[in-house]
Amino acid sequence: MPTQILSLQPLVNNIRALAMDGVQQANSGHPGMPLGMADAAATLWSTFLKFNPQDPAWPDRDRFVLSAGHGSMLLYSLLHLSGYDLPLEQLKNFRQWGSHTPGHPEYGHTPGVETTTGPLGQGISNAVGLALAERWLAARFNRPEFPVVNHHTFVIASDGDLMEGVSHEACALAGHLNLGRLIVLYDDNQITIDGGTDLTFTEDVLRRFQAYNWQTMRVDGHNRAEVAAAIEQALADDSRPTLIACRTIIGYGSPNRQGTSKAHGEPLGVDEVRLTKEGMGWPVDEPFQVIPEAQELLRAAAHQGQVAQGEWETMMLNYAAAYPELHAQFYQMIRGELPAEWDAFTPDFGSKPLATRAASGKLLEQLIPRLPGLLGGSADLTPSNNTRTSQMADVQDGSFSGRYLRFGVREHGMGAVMNGLAAHGGIIPYGGTFLVFSDYMRPAIRLAAMMGLGVVYVFTHDSVGLGEDGPTHQPIEHLASLRAIPNLVVFRPADAWETVAGWQTAIQRRHGPTALILTRQSLPLLDPAQTAGAINGGYILSDRPQPQAILLATGSEVHIALAAQKLLDEQGVAARVVSLPSWELFREMARDYQEAVLPAKIKVRVAIEAAATFGWERFVGETGVVLGLDRFGASAPYQTIYQNLGLTAEALAAQVVKLL
Amino acid sequence: MPTQILSLQPLVNNIRALAMDGVQQANSGHPGMPLGMADAAATLWSTFLKFNPQDPAWPDRDRFVLSAGHGSMLLYSLLHLSGYDLPLEQLKNFRQWGSHTPGHPEYGHTPGVETTTGPLGQGISNAVGLALAERWLAARFNRPEFPVVNHHTFVIASDGDLMEGVSHEACALAGHLNLGRLIVLYDDNQITIDGGTDLTFTEDVLRRFQAYNWQTMRVDGHNRAEVAAAIEQALADDSRPTLIACRTIIGYGSPNRQGTSKAHGEPLGVDEVRLTKEGMGWPVDEPFQVIPEAQELLRAAAHQGQVAQGEWETMMLNYAAAYPELHAQFYQMIRGELPAEWDAFTPDFGSKPLATRAASGKLLEQLIPRLPGLLGGSADLTPSNNTRTSQMADVQDGSFSGRYLRFGVREHGMGAVMNGLAAHGGIIPYGGTFLVFSDYMRPAIRLAAMMGLGVVYVFTHDSVGLGEDGPTHQPIEHLASLRAIPNLVVFRPADAWETVAGWQTAIQRRHGPTALILTRQSLPLLDPAQTAGAINGGYILSDRPQPQAILLATGSEVHIALAAQKLLDEQGVAARVVSLPSWELFREMARDYQEAVLPAKIKVRVAIEAAATFGWERFVGETGVVLGLDRFGASAPYQTIYQNLGLTAEALAAQVVKLL
Repeated sequence: MPTQILSLQPLVNNIRALAMDGVQQANSGHPGMPLGMADAAATLWSTFLKFNPQDPAWPDRDRFVLSAGHGSMLLYSLLHLSGYDLPLEQLKNFRQWGSHTPGHPEYGHTPGVETTTGPLGQGISNAVGLALAERWLAARFNRPEFPVVNHHTFVIASDGDLMEGVSHEACALAGHLNLGRLIVLYDDNQITIDGGTDLTFTEDVLRRFQAYNWQTMRVDGHNRAEVAAAIEQALADDSRPTLIACRTIIGYGSPNRQGTSKAHGEPLGVDEVRLTKEGMGWPVDEPFQVIPEAQELLRAAAHQGQVAQGEWETMMLNYAAAYPELHAQFYQMIRGELPAEWDAFTPDFGSKPLATRAASGKLLEQLIPRLPGLLGGSADLTPSNNTRTSQMADVQDGSFSGRYLRFGVREHGMGAVMNGLAAHGGIIPYGGTFLVFSDYMRPAIRLAAMMGLGVVYVFTHDSVGLGEDGPTHQPIEHLASLRAIPNLVVFRPADAWETVAGWQTAIQRRHGPTALILTRQSLPLLDPAQTAGAINGGYILSDRPQPQAILLATGSEVHIALAAQKLLDEQGVAARVVSLPSWELFREMARDYQEAVLPAKIKVRVAIEAAATFGWERFVGETGVVLGLDRFGASAPYQTIYQNLGLTAEALAAQVVKLL
Repeated sequence: MPTQILSLQPLVNNIRALAMDGVQQANSGHPGMPLGMADAAATLWSTFLKFNPQDPAWPDRDRFVLSAGHGSMLLYSLLHLSGYDLPLEQLKNFRQWGSHTPGHPEYGHTPGVETTTGPLGQGISNAVGLALAERWLAARFNRPEFPVVNHHTFVIASDGDLMEGVSHEACALAGHLNLGRLIVLYDDNQITIDGGTDLTFTEDVLRRFQAYNWQTMRVDGHNRAEVAAAIEQALADDSRPTLIACRTIIGYGSPNRQGTSKAHGEPLGVDEVRLTKEGMGWPVDEPFQVIPEAQELLRAAAHQGQVAQGEWETMMLNYAAAYPELHAQFYQMIRGELPAEWDAFTPDFGSKPLATRAASGKLLEQLIPRLPGLLGGSADLTPSNNTRTSQMADVQDGSFSGRYLRFGVREHGMGAVMNGLAAHGGIIPYGGTFLVFSDYMRPAIRLAAMMGLGVVYVFTHDSVGLGEDGPTHQPIEHLASLRAIPNLVVFRPADAWETVAGWQTAIQRRHGPTALILTRQSLPLLDPAQTAGAINGGYILSDRPQPQAILLATGSEVHIALAAQKLLDEQGVAARVVSLPSWELFREMARDYQEAVLPAKIKVRVAIEAAATFGWERFVGETGVVLGLDRFGASAPYQTIYQNLGLTAEALAAQVVKLL
């Protein structure tokens, strides 16, 4: 192998040249990292990475994550040279409208991109999810002589990735779970945007990762033989994740920029590109040159991957014969298909008031056995989130086939790991915490929405209704904040039956995340015949002939609206109650439907929600009123809070009368 | 001292009894942590902590942070027994409406509470800010024989605090800065809500903190002599922060709950409280008993603090004589008063288009010398955020008197450290990152708003207008998400002159945070005479006689609105342009003013903002239209993005015509 590693120079040069050219052509981008990590990346891709550009979706490929997503031209160069469907024309259109080479790599947008990166700390944390998915699926599907799931997850990460808290959370979890097939190449270039890492980042990174139970190594990132030896050592240890600190020079080869923060985030300039190319003996006349020697090195690796996939598929034919059910289940899960009749059950909620978090727990009891890909957990709030069913075993090293994840007090890590689980394929991840702590995981939620991942959030303790824990734990602005995220469905059910619709939505939505917003406190059960419309996001829950007013509510406040309706009856006022568990779903409905539920002619509309009023004007209009909370909450029993903050049926009815 | 430590048993018992009683009376709360950490806390408060209950605002007191805020009854017990203005009646009203003993400690609500805690990881990270404030103010004000600022910051933190990513960020920074006066007692009780820490938290915490350059120790947390010796050793080392891992038993003394997660978050129950009290020889007949021996121990410490404050005040009299200007400045800063004429300058923005981030940078050049308490930095985006002026020196160990903070790629840590800087007193902190990464720091932003801290966020790259970096870096939902937070002022100026109003608002708002939302791209300068209304949050920027329509916009889109106004002129349509840099400030204005700017009778209203449309109905009404982005952005030059996503003057004018 050393021979091969030494012969990588043409490939390394070609990567560097393409990366410089892409950035220069766009007049925007980050040349420093591709120049610095070209040696290590070329070593990994040419010699170790298992991939097949002909089938980027091959389930048993290795996953490669460029956590330092700003170095996107490194990845695009590798993809192009390897033979992925990313023609040179795309590299020339780096960062241009409609190209497949956006500023930062985007999942689902460019073949070979395993996860969207750029926001630092996310990629490496997604990789923990990818590596966990591999172990979990292997535990479920592998059988003697049938290593159906048998791959590695490789990451290139930067100083910034390791400074971010989310990587602390995810990497500590990876060490706890002994995810030995996770291998991180850390671009230890001692440079950040502000200058040298001595300005602020002087921790002993290796020691920290040792504390997490990682294998750690330090190599010269420009010595490809050293890098290769380190990767071999990492591959040899299946019992711990590995961090390989690659000491590199950012902007390597650029005579006037290398080793400085100037190399990081702006084009080198035409002259400097020329000088850099000259220094490495690269032709300077034309940009975007590709030399056959470079291409061949990666095409050979790609060919090996193709052969490997062929062998794997042969094995899968035998697997189909030996384990037909497992075989069928594997492909069903990988394709994201739901088993037939997965929701063909009638839950038993009893007749007593039930918190929607408890209803969710009861549904999970049914869903877990019916949906083999459903894998969930909580950020150390299991008894509060009702996320663990009576039959679940924990996922731990030695028992990866469990169904329950102990994320620890690591909400952000949980969000990012769930994204990795979903991006891997084969898994429907869900994770629980208090709604107020959705703030801790917002960057990961946003990326799930952007990537279109079918992740499910179980956010309980959804309002001041949680009571005594007080304002630090009471969400106010969170509903509005989540509703504002594109492609995220927020679903706040009013009772157990609406919770069924929430989970149905969440499971069926395989191209975007769903946030279930659930109460701590018990809520009366509605009539299931009346809640059938919940799946539409908004519906008439209770009507009166020729209604003069509409009461709108979500979640626990729906019951206040129903009580107000009765009070209004007594005063001879006919009011309709509209339950709006999901604004997003309701707005996706046909205009006619929306108009039937909220007729324009009924101007008297009062909404009630124990949350910020922000955004409700959309439904109540200029003349309407919203009873909500544009302040932080308070620590007290929840009935007292509702009473003292004016969230009552009496106040609601009075508002209607006032408007009439 | 060992004698004293040994004699603490009555105090320890009293703390435990009060904590159990408070939780039992409320029938809600967390008894496990107070029972487990009573020994360590009693040791700290009785023997080391410098505090004066008669003057909780004494500037040179030690700061004590209960990062594990769920153990609030521990703190309330200590405060009560020490003689703070927190009568026993308050402890009996734990977690009740209007009490000073909310579920989690709240800054500004209860004397002696230095920062609001509960959301895990925040308190310990605030403490880094408190400890940094001490070093920074000491460097500025201390003179030979005048140790004006000379105190320590003590923390009690939990497993959860250390699992959270924010504590990684802040503690790594504390180690880098050698904050030797930061001392953390880590309640290493091996229990989380889900069960034993072996479920998920198996990292070597001490090794990790050693990697951060912390002094670390491990003690038996129930051996008060060991705890005391460790604190002494921590105090002896001014060169590094210290982590003291206190191995404790959660719910200590509760025969049926101790050492289990059941002890954590629910009342022990009447019978178990009785058993626990019996076990420690405490009278079981009446709850909320206070014994003089216990009180005396803390009152003696409080008396020492009172004496120390007296000596300090004497010293300050001499300081006033020796350094009158420093003395005056110290008190001005500590009181949060602004120097006279701090804003009496006319900035020179030139006449060429200028990005509002650049305008902000120019203003900082003026503000930094005029506002001695202004201390800022960036999460490793200094050249992009324009947060560092030409005259600033970095804050580093050995040069704490610098004015610029290198936060590293640690947005969340930055937010939490800023809260600590502000909570300490004497400092107006500001911190920069890209607007999209405000998501990383939301939990800290929320707490700044809840605490009413005058923190300033410099959020640049505020829309798809940042261009090629693409959707991962382009904020969409962030404006709406921030506007929904109570007590946060969001200010998005349209040009350099409106940026002046933004900074004026931010500096003057000493009781709540302000987020400045600034462009990457250059914007034309408006006429400063016309932008005088920006300070009101919303105003008529450009009018026409008898306007038929109103165009509303913020930030960079104001210029599109002005262009649309001209297009409408050509079509004979008179349109008013309203600039709305801050919704919050505008809504605080008198109704008359609001009506004058947005008269109800003008129904044709079109808003434009390169962001989620969420919330705009508030201003455009039911009949209005919002041009915005309810999708993620795209990677391309920004002019292309605006064009292709329909954010143009032509589209805006066309909408108006359509509505007319």
